[in-house]
Amino acid sequence: PGKKVLIVYAHQEPKSFNGSLLKIAVEELTKQGCSVTVSDLYAMQFEPRATRNDIVGRLHNSEAFNYGVETWEAYKRGGLSKDLVEEQKKVQEADLLIFQFPLFWFNMPAILKGWMDRVLVQGFAYDLSKAYDGGLLQDKLSLFSFTTGGGHEMYSKEGIGGDIRYVLWPMQHGIMHFCGVKVLEPHICYAPENVSEEKRKEMLTAWSQRLKTLWKEEPIDCSPEWYFK
Amino acid sequence: PGKKVLIVYAHQEPKSFNGSLLKIAVEELTKQGCSVTVSDLYAMQFEPRATRNDIVGRLHNSEAFNYGVETWEAYKRGGLSKDLVEEQKKVQEADLLIFQFPLFWFNMPAILKGWMDRVLVQGFAYDLSKAYDGGLLQDKLSLFSFTTGGGHEMYSKEGIGGDIRYVLWPMQHGIMHFCGVKVLEPHICYAPENVSEEKRKEMLTAWSQRLKTLWKEEPIDCSPEWYFK
Repeated sequence: PGKKVLIVYAHQEPKSFNGSLLKIAVEELTKQGCSVTVSDLYAMQFEPRATRNDIVGRLHNSEAFNYGVETWEAYKRGGLSKDLVEEQKKVQEADLLIFQFPLFWFNMPAILKGWMDRVLVQGFAYDLSKAYDGGLLQDKLSLFSFTTGGGHEMYSKEGIGGDIRYVLWPMQHGIMHFCGVKVLEPHICYAPENVSEEKRKEMLTAWSQRLKTLWKEEPIDCSPEWYFK
Repeated sequence: PGKKVLIVYAHQEPKSFNGSLLKIAVEELTKQGCSVTVSDLYAMQFEPRATRNDIVGRLHNSEAFNYGVETWEAYKRGGLSKDLVEEQKKVQEADLLIFQFPLFWFNMPAILKGWMDRVLVQGFAYDLSKAYDGGLLQDKLSLFSFTTGGGHEMYSKEGIGGDIRYVLWPMQHGIMHFCGVKVLEPHICYAPENVSEEKRKEMLTAWSQRLKTLWKEEPIDCSPEWYFK
């Protein structure tokens, strides 16, 4: 109770299975007394492209545009574009970040990748020698909740898609852990489009049930062993 | 000679190191007699968001928008948006796809991920039971050429970033191999922003040299062993 949650949601259709998972999370967490904020990226028409428009006013070096340097400098002088400042404020206030999306090509959809690229800038999320366990977003938790097209058997060590944890490495370790954010077990719904209505309901119930005891969960040990053991 | 190459390029600044790598590839391949096409995503203001705008005309199911289903149906009836049709034509004609980009958060920049999400639709790049070695884009080669922020030592099995091959799994196996495209060894320039001018020149020369004998290279064995051995 009293915890703040930011759900970054990337699906075009409220009636989708991802939309149902979002709705359940908002309802369950609100019921617990959490304060829940949703960044509905498609509805916001969130900009995924990392461009000069992200910097308000003059550039640090207008001779050769370097996105990393320019956003770092802009962050320090309070010169990032309004949409980024708003997202950073939501992140700053949150105790838990939930990412809800359909897996696209073994990764998150571009609109969500763009959120990562543009919001988690140097100075805000990490800094020189402030990364991983020293990252700037410590004392926060994250949880990747996603649906897949392929079935569970496909995403196994012996399956053609390999262990599902392989695709989690860039997202959980390369982004969240890099920023100092702790990582809870992912929540994966396999192939909701290809299962029975009953099975889909079971998956929704399982998500709702998990959320009831979420705050008692321990983060994973976000090291190579967890992913590639 | 006579081979067709599509370079999908994702950097905002022509004067960047990525810009130099692009220029070298265009020059060297053209010199060899290849026909080279460049999709300069930022210059094109390429749209990374997968939305309803990608379908011209009526939706297959306007009650609940499903991007995968809608683009598949639209592809079959020739109803994809013009920018996608143009990119697909370039892919169809190419013998080799080169992706040139800076690694952002252990993956490609959102604008390039958006190219993958939107261009490689079902029916065009893969289909029901036509994936991996049976994918629809067979007889093509691909090569991921990218720069990193962190140094080589960081991206090793013992380094905090893990083996660089871990981040290649979703891109090479999950996208290219899935579509039936063969994968050449990646070309990685580590931390060009943090090395001497001399070292940078060496890296540019190495790329130019590699391209001279590129057509004699054998594709990698794109199986879990290559990535996680």
